Amino acid sequence: MLIRILHCHKVHPLSPRCFTSATLNVLMSGDVLRKTRVYTEEDVLQYSKVSCDSNPLHTDSAAAKDVGFEGPLVHGMLVASLFPHIISSHFPGAVYVSQSLNFKFPVYIGDQIIGEVQATNLRENKNRYFAKFKTRCFKNGDLLVIDGEAVALLPTLTVEQIQHEKR
Amino acid sequence: MLIRILHCHKVHPLSPRCFTSATLNVLMSGDVLRKTRVYTEEDVLQYSKVSCDSNPLHTDSAAAKDVGFEGPLVHGMLVASLFPHIISSHFPGAVYVSQSLNFKFPVYIGDQIIGEVQATNLRENKNRYFAKFKTRCFKNGDLLVIDGEAVALLPTLTVEQIQHEKR
Repeated sequence: MLIRILHCHKVHPLSPRCFTSATLNVLMSGDVLRKTRVYTEEDVLQYSKVSCDSNPLHTDSAAAKDVGFEGPLVHGMLVASLFPHIISSHFPGAVYVSQSLNFKFPVYIGDQIIGEVQATNLRENKNRYFAKFKTRCFKNGDLLVIDGEAVALLPTLTVEQIQHEKR
Repeated sequence: MLIRILHCHKVHPLSPRCFTSATLNVLMSGDVLRKTRVYTEEDVLQYSKVSCDSNPLHTDSAAAKDVGFEGPLVHGMLVASLFPHIISSHFPGAVYVSQSLNFKFPVYIGDQIIGEVQATNLRENKNRYFAKFKTRCFKNGDLLVIDGEAVALLPTLTVEQIQHEKR
């Protein structure tokens, strides 16, 4: 696996091969796709609106501190949306089948979050591909804040370059 | 359980007791909380923006039909956001611990979706409550489109009335 390293963020000392926007290749079991994002107060506000989730922990600093947090939390489901975003940006047309999520540590506005999906199993089915991924988010480098697994149905195993990243 | 029915949508012939905005009570194992929502094209657009998820299946009718769907899909993670929304609107300050999601059928713009969380286990811990929920979304009445489980840490078991529903 080590000889197949292409372009990696420094997250793990023994990284599998990872794709960036400069890489075009075919997905193999063990491969990692990553995306970094920092959530803003505006992101939390917009997500609160579209999800109708008005939990005060996301918008009211006093309410968040009252229960022991450092400040307003980014919605866990917003952070977790990094996983389908990563998968579908490299495999447009991917259909999500399942996702499990364990929210282990809080994510605050301004935290640098690395979302990571690692292919663990690939199976062809009628010219499409069931792909199982280990899905993880790390905060400020190496603190695991979300982990779980996802299964998606991919139209191809060719990893598409990302041409127009919004963030 | 049947004698404890309070206010129920007609979803199941043998419904447990369910809460609506007119109900104020204490959550017990077996109780159900529900919320109905119809997603619009604008919801999908706004969610695409905040999640950065630009999968063409959500915005391009031709791309969606090419792979056998009837039209653009609502993002599964947007539909699943009904679960924390339901929980936190009845228990402001709830902290999400975990969520599993199985996406079984597509959700299209305009579909009427009933999100439902059913308490299956409640456990006190230092004046807070670990609550396990069966989490399900039904489309057009009784088609199960998402199922899974969630665990949340609740500040109380008193079910709060919903005063200001946006939708």
